[in-house]
Amino acid sequence: MNGAESLVRTLVEGDVDVCFTNPGTSEMHFCAALDRVDGMRCVLGLFEGVVTGAADGYGRMMDKPAATLLHTGPGLANGVANLHNAKKAKTPIVNIVGEHATYHINHDAPLTADIEAIAWPVSHWVKTSPDAPSVACDGAQAIAEARSAPGRIATLILPADTAWNEAEGTAKVPEVAPPDSVGEGQVRDCADALRSGEPCLILLGHHGLRAGPLETAGRIAAATGATVMSEFPASRAERGAGRFTAERMPYVVDQALAVTGKFKHIILAGAKIPVAFFAYPGKPSVLIPESCRPHVLATEEDDIAGALEWLADEVGAAGARAVLQEAGRPDLRTGDLTIESIGAAIGNLLPENAIVSDESITGGRALSPFTRGCAPHDWLFGTGGSIGRGIPEATGAAIACPDRKVLSLVGDGSAMYTIQGLWTQARENCDVVTVIYANRTYAILHGELRNVGANPGPKAHDMFDLDRPNLDFVKMAQGMGVDAVRAETAEQFNRALAAAFAGKGPHLIEAMI
Amino acid sequence: MNGAESLVRTLVEGDVDVCFTNPGTSEMHFCAALDRVDGMRCVLGLFEGVVTGAADGYGRMMDKPAATLLHTGPGLANGVANLHNAKKAKTPIVNIVGEHATYHINHDAPLTADIEAIAWPVSHWVKTSPDAPSVACDGAQAIAEARSAPGRIATLILPADTAWNEAEGTAKVPEVAPPDSVGEGQVRDCADALRSGEPCLILLGHHGLRAGPLETAGRIAAATGATVMSEFPASRAERGAGRFTAERMPYVVDQALAVTGKFKHIILAGAKIPVAFFAYPGKPSVLIPESCRPHVLATEEDDIAGALEWLADEVGAAGARAVLQEAGRPDLRTGDLTIESIGAAIGNLLPENAIVSDESITGGRALSPFTRGCAPHDWLFGTGGSIGRGIPEATGAAIACPDRKVLSLVGDGSAMYTIQGLWTQARENCDVVTVIYANRTYAILHGELRNVGANPGPKAHDMFDLDRPNLDFVKMAQGMGVDAVRAETAEQFNRALAAAFAGKGPHLIEAMI
Repeated sequence: MNGAESLVRTLVEGDVDVCFTNPGTSEMHFCAALDRVDGMRCVLGLFEGVVTGAADGYGRMMDKPAATLLHTGPGLANGVANLHNAKKAKTPIVNIVGEHATYHINHDAPLTADIEAIAWPVSHWVKTSPDAPSVACDGAQAIAEARSAPGRIATLILPADTAWNEAEGTAKVPEVAPPDSVGEGQVRDCADALRSGEPCLILLGHHGLRAGPLETAGRIAAATGATVMSEFPASRAERGAGRFTAERMPYVVDQALAVTGKFKHIILAGAKIPVAFFAYPGKPSVLIPESCRPHVLATEEDDIAGALEWLADEVGAAGARAVLQEAGRPDLRTGDLTIESIGAAIGNLLPENAIVSDESITGGRALSPFTRGCAPHDWLFGTGGSIGRGIPEATGAAIACPDRKVLSLVGDGSAMYTIQGLWTQARENCDVVTVIYANRTYAILHGELRNVGANPGPKAHDMFDLDRPNLDFVKMAQGMGVDAVRAETAEQFNRALAAAFAGKGPHLIEAMI
Repeated sequence: MNGAESLVRTLVEGDVDVCFTNPGTSEMHFCAALDRVDGMRCVLGLFEGVVTGAADGYGRMMDKPAATLLHTGPGLANGVANLHNAKKAKTPIVNIVGEHATYHINHDAPLTADIEAIAWPVSHWVKTSPDAPSVACDGAQAIAEARSAPGRIATLILPADTAWNEAEGTAKVPEVAPPDSVGEGQVRDCADALRSGEPCLILLGHHGLRAGPLETAGRIAAATGATVMSEFPASRAERGAGRFTAERMPYVVDQALAVTGKFKHIILAGAKIPVAFFAYPGKPSVLIPESCRPHVLATEEDDIAGALEWLADEVGAAGARAVLQEAGRPDLRTGDLTIESIGAAIGNLLPENAIVSDESITGGRALSPFTRGCAPHDWLFGTGGSIGRGIPEATGAAIACPDRKVLSLVGDGSAMYTIQGLWTQARENCDVVTVIYANRTYAILHGELRNVGANPGPKAHDMFDLDRPNLDFVKMAQGMGVDAVRAETAEQFNRALAAAFAGKGPHLIEAMI
């Protein structure tokens, strides 16, 4: 078997059995090996941002890595923005990047680039395999690195001759250490804060937002009077009726400060001290007052669920009852199509066990009240701030969970970054309903202009508007094989969303707001 | 004036008066400054690959830099692939990359990334401005760096507070040294080779492919019997009737070796020794035989035109007459639409002074014989091997040369990488005719599979085919405001191309081959 086949077999044996890909010449032997190895599902993206964003969505839902297969430095570079998002989401991913044959690199051919340098800013581990017999071992190591807490990005660079030369078989994935247990001192310190009688905020992040630890935090809140919230850049939150609801920190600096200003202690469980998304003149970067003392219960690398259980025991909340979310859905609305009527329709119609991939930006900030009483579901948020995440992420989540409906909420500006992902949804018959918030502007930037104190004129505003010419997402979706309709009233949107949820396979609704 | 305004004014005073952009929050003050400074044209792209690819097309045509304005690390990363192409094309570009405020960077906000690390693989010069008073000077230095031979990429990173804090006015661009003159020894060595009586190949690259040096090389050929060719990764070639025709080195290794095998000497004028695009098992990387001696007349950093003139004098070719290309156009064809009938239509109809941006990949390899006798025109080729170059490059070329027709030839696989560029063409009413070679496959990869000796099965082939579902480029183009038609016969294509050439503004033809 050649190096490529040894790698594909090592990946499959190591439980990495989905590969999102856009291959080129240097990845030919990897592709050819797919026909000799059972058990690897290969999913083609028409642009590498789709490939890496899909791997992010897959990893968030599966808590295990998919592989990506990328073509040399530029192919990797095209995927860097969504790898940035995935890195901030702590998503496990194994990138396989094809490179020129070892002896060809020094000839400076057109595609020659410093692949390791491109990989490092978005990788926790980078290695270039030196020869074919090393490839299996390096692949196994990459899997172990990706699986290490809190979820890491491993990039394995594969010179073409290491793929086509003879190898020596597969390799076993090294043992991966479980997340660290937290120390007694940390738990005691947090317990003291909770018992101090002063107002406490418990801020959850990463795996702390799964149903189990949320319920534990809810018990602590019931026993101590603490408030529980979610970090703003939450990778995946389990929400809905019967679960404990932790609202997200606000995005807007003044709103966040208004929330945190009430607290004397902030207990961090998988979250960091909240910071502003951007700096604004005259406003702070850190979103807690100086009078608020931070206490780290668990970092993202720790066993967050275990730490919360320990803390619950410590503060006598073992037998407490969390106030769980009551079931309740909003009524459908009529009349103009607005952000609120879209929210009401989603809240009214969201199927049980749905996955919501949320890149709705300004359009989606008001969704929580409409949806928190829906049947249980998962919600995926932006973590790295790079737009173009939504369509690929929804695609990957649908590949990961074929029996769950995926709702993909995307701003029009964001959608145009990785619109090619719709084609992959059509090809793989992904069960994704995409809602485009078509406000024909980078709406967030008009607000940001004011926030940073700039005095914009017409030329500046022209850089933020998408209305010259208007984008027609129905035609673009149809051009990539995805059924699509436009909704201009609340009634039209309600009907379109109900129909899309009732069907199977990809649908797109262009919501004209 | 704040730092942002000092930079915009410095750019305009330094003759950088077009800015391709996709801004975000950290670039707000730069955008706001556009309304206070006359003379900067800002062009919005809906994805940064469009932005940087357009800057490449602009720079190739203008021989001076455009600016790009990009949003933090991920925004830059999205533009890296086309910056890679631009770097290999020796295109001058000034990148302005917004960054968090200096005091905000260490808080690891979602968008925080190592921007310098992302920039270095595709930049010759990288600097982060430390404060507002430094911004103008750093901007002036960036312009000088970009303008240095052979054409370089300068990346200036602008923390938000350096943009919004008070600055001290503009800065003057430092003097840029002209390209180096070559040494007498080099010229003598090349002249000796030409006079040796042994077969000589003169290989031209970079600015050696402009009309003047081409004609000089043609005189040398007439006087000495040498053969003149173009490097394969040629950034811009001036071609057509009345000019000297230098055919490109073939892409396919065996074809290239068959060409070079005849020569005992290769004289390099702005070109490097030809190397294979990729390595293939059992085939050489270097595409000249060991018996062929290389002679460097001029590197890409040298005064290539001056070196050729000197060489012409040295071999007594000053008064020789180059055999210039005769005018002649192929007849239009009828019947099936094929690569050949498309070539004939282009050759028959190409307007005088057109700019052809060629990312036709397999579809375009046969175009040269059809077009070499057309009225004078420019031809832009791929230089870095990263696909997704064509639509943005054509857009930038059209912005650079509004009075010239741009013909954008794009493979369907390549077109999907940066399809968003069509919207910018519509918005700016770019005079671009896009021809999509719709063979519904990454056709080149089927050939490459054979070339690397892989034995592919159906799963491998499935990764290279774009026919499930079929892409509809007419709908996608219309969705972005570009007129589009589909051509399924030669007659339909001939009519569509004639109509598109007769009109103004963007048109797209989906050529079903």
